Amino acid sequence: MFKAEIKSETLKGLVNIISTLIDEVKFTITPEGMTLKAVDPAHVAMIELNIGAKAFESYSAGNTEIGLDLDKVKTVIKLAGPGDIIAMEQDDSKGRFIFRIGNITRSMNLVDTSSMSDPKVPQLSLTANAEMLVDQLQRGIRAAESISDHISLRAHPQFFELSCEGDTDDSSLKLEGSELESIDVPSEVHSLFPLDYFSNIVRAIPAGTKVRIELDSDFPVKLVFSLANGEANVMYLLAPRIESD
Amino acid sequence: MFKAEIKSETLKGLVNIISTLIDEVKFTITPEGMTLKAVDPAHVAMIELNIGAKAFESYSAGNTEIGLDLDKVKTVIKLAGPGDIIAMEQDDSKGRFIFRIGNITRSMNLVDTSSMSDPKVPQLSLTANAEMLVDQLQRGIRAAESISDHISLRAHPQFFELSCEGDTDDSSLKLEGSELESIDVPSEVHSLFPLDYFSNIVRAIPAGTKVRIELDSDFPVKLVFSLANGEANVMYLLAPRIESD
Amino acid sequence: MFKAEIKSETLKGLVNIISTLIDEVKFTITPEGMTLKAVDPAHVAMIELNIGAKAFESYSAGNTEIGLDLDKVKTVIKLAGPGDIIAMEQDDSKGRFIFRIGNITRSMNLVDTSSMSDPKVPQLSLTANAEMLVDQLQRGIRAAESISDHISLRAHPQFFELSCEGDTDDSSLKLEGSELESIDVPSEVHSLFPLDYFSNIVRAIPAGTKVRIELDSDFPVKLVFSLANGEANVMYLLAPRIESD
Repeated sequence: MFKAEIKSETLKGLVNIISTLIDEVKFTITPEGMTLKAVDPAHVAMIELNIGAKAFESYSAGNTEIGLDLDKVKTVIKLAGPGDIIAMEQDDSKGRFIFRIGNITRSMNLVDTSSMSDPKVPQLSLTANAEMLVDQLQRGIRAAESISDHISLRAHPQFFELSCEGDTDDSSLKLEGSELESIDVPSEVHSLFPLDYFSNIVRAIPAGTKVRIELDSDFPVKLVFSLANGEANVMYLLAPRIESD
Repeated sequence: MFKAEIKSETLKGLVNIISTLIDEVKFTITPEGMTLKAVDPAHVAMIELNIGAKAFESYSAGNTEIGLDLDKVKTVIKLAGPGDIIAMEQDDSKGRFIFRIGNITRSMNLVDTSSMSDPKVPQLSLTANAEMLVDQLQRGIRAAESISDHISLRAHPQFFELSCEGDTDDSSLKLEGSELESIDVPSEVHSLFPLDYFSNIVRAIPAGTKVRIELDSDFPVKLVFSLANGEANVMYLLAPRIESD
Repeated sequence: MFKAEIKSETLKGLVNIISTLIDEVKFTITPEGMTLKAVDPAHVAMIELNIGAKAFESYSAGNTEIGLDLDKVKTVIKLAGPGDIIAMEQDDSKGRFIFRIGNITRSMNLVDTSSMSDPKVPQLSLTANAEMLVDQLQRGIRAAESISDHISLRAHPQFFELSCEGDTDDSSLKLEGSELESIDVPSEVHSLFPLDYFSNIVRAIPAGTKVRIELDSDFPVKLVFSLANGEANVMYLLAPRIESD
């Protein structure tokens, strides 16, 4: 059983994040909230999302699983205006999921989740930590575009740098001092990542969101941030590109 | 002879409606106003438009016919800013039609109307009647998109419903109570219509316009509405898709 | 040596004008400012641009040449917000050009200017002169679009006219009286020009800019205007299309 109401903006924010990785998803539902673990088809990135019941306007659920096609959920969200409440309901008997926005009812087949196994989330202990507003990362990505397919993240005890090296052009964004919310880097580390993946996730995070980046040399990067006024927590892992010299 | 001035917004509204059906049109001109009857190339929809002289800022005409290419008229309208007056004049001797917007003069060949016959408008007596703001219909269409090529209209003594049934998805917009301006349905009726035609005309109607829908089972639907502060009246007929069970 | 700071809007305005003609450019640098002379690949139009040191927020240079790819400069400008200052520096030793916008550093290879010779600017004495806001020219161009590939400019002692003649359509914009800043035409002249070139340069000029047009029959047209609060002067020449009757 699952029945809940959510602000259209909140649902949109969550769907935008998940759909950077994958279209068909399985939510694991409990009376306390929903969780999702997903890996992209190329196994380059992984997301773990925990949405507490308080992220919803109302929430009532047993223990169940729900499979949804996010492309369809996006078309539903577009029917809602700002401030609209979207009601959601699982109709188990018919294998349907139902959205209601005012006098509109939209129902769709549930996606079969029997073949969807939860990816195992690796436990990583990364030495460097920095926190900044996502807006800074978004600026760094714009500067990197059209220069290379990869972006280098570098954490130094005094600064955090996003840079990009092309055949004829370079770009760099260096964050230090008040441009960082916090920085805790014992010794300098850096890794190279695919720009498209990094760009997709960073662009999907709403402006003004504080992001914690955990980094090490030639390890995956971990992005941690909250949505829905802190009631939804996201952990995103992106594999490095190992440079061969 | 035909010489008239019209607000750019009014002309735009009229052209948007007609061009959902057809590009080259024949207006029948009298001293009292203009009329147009047109059917789309596939003979699925028909429009009858009556524009009274009062829809114009100034109007002076004899009995004549004017053939215009609406795609060209649209490029003229784009030259006008909001609030601009567009002056129009037929130059019979040269077979030209002239638009003036401030210091811009734009003239074009008249379209030959000799082969354009007026379609015969069928007299239909449809049992169900409902009136609503076009905004409600526009929401119903957005909800139906990407689900099916057809939309079902259903009139019930208590409600009016737009719905759509796809292979895996359904959508429905149910209007009742204060969401309707009026409803007069002796007994439930419904018909199925091509979504693209219905969508094109409903989207072309300016937000805030009151639309009367006349419906019967497996009959064309009739949409009746006014533009230009009630000085232009539109009747639109759309053929149903007959369902074979 | 070259080191300067410029408002992003000023740089954008200058780049927009030059890139209507050519992508890779050579700036000739002196302690007093920069100049550029360029002709488009088809040798139909020519531009001469003089940017005084006062167009910059700060300016410090010796005598040198700088070759830049304007497409890349445009991507740099997009990284700047309104009001941002863009710092520029030539790194001669590495053959690099460096832009800085806040905490973003963007560097690129200088374009080799050794094969770029300055075109010789012809000395023309054109009899007709008219000045108007570029906004009027922009309206005239919009009216001419989709009618013909050429635009006719006509200067008359009392008016200045942009017109276009197609197979079935004509358009005309006639400027007179207060629509002109000044007019000095001893006797009527007119020439025909390629609409795409004329349209590209006129659209690139910021709204509100006063443009002087110098015209003669079957001669190039000369457009003269200033940017950067009068600190950058532009002269643009466009070859006529000679009509053969």
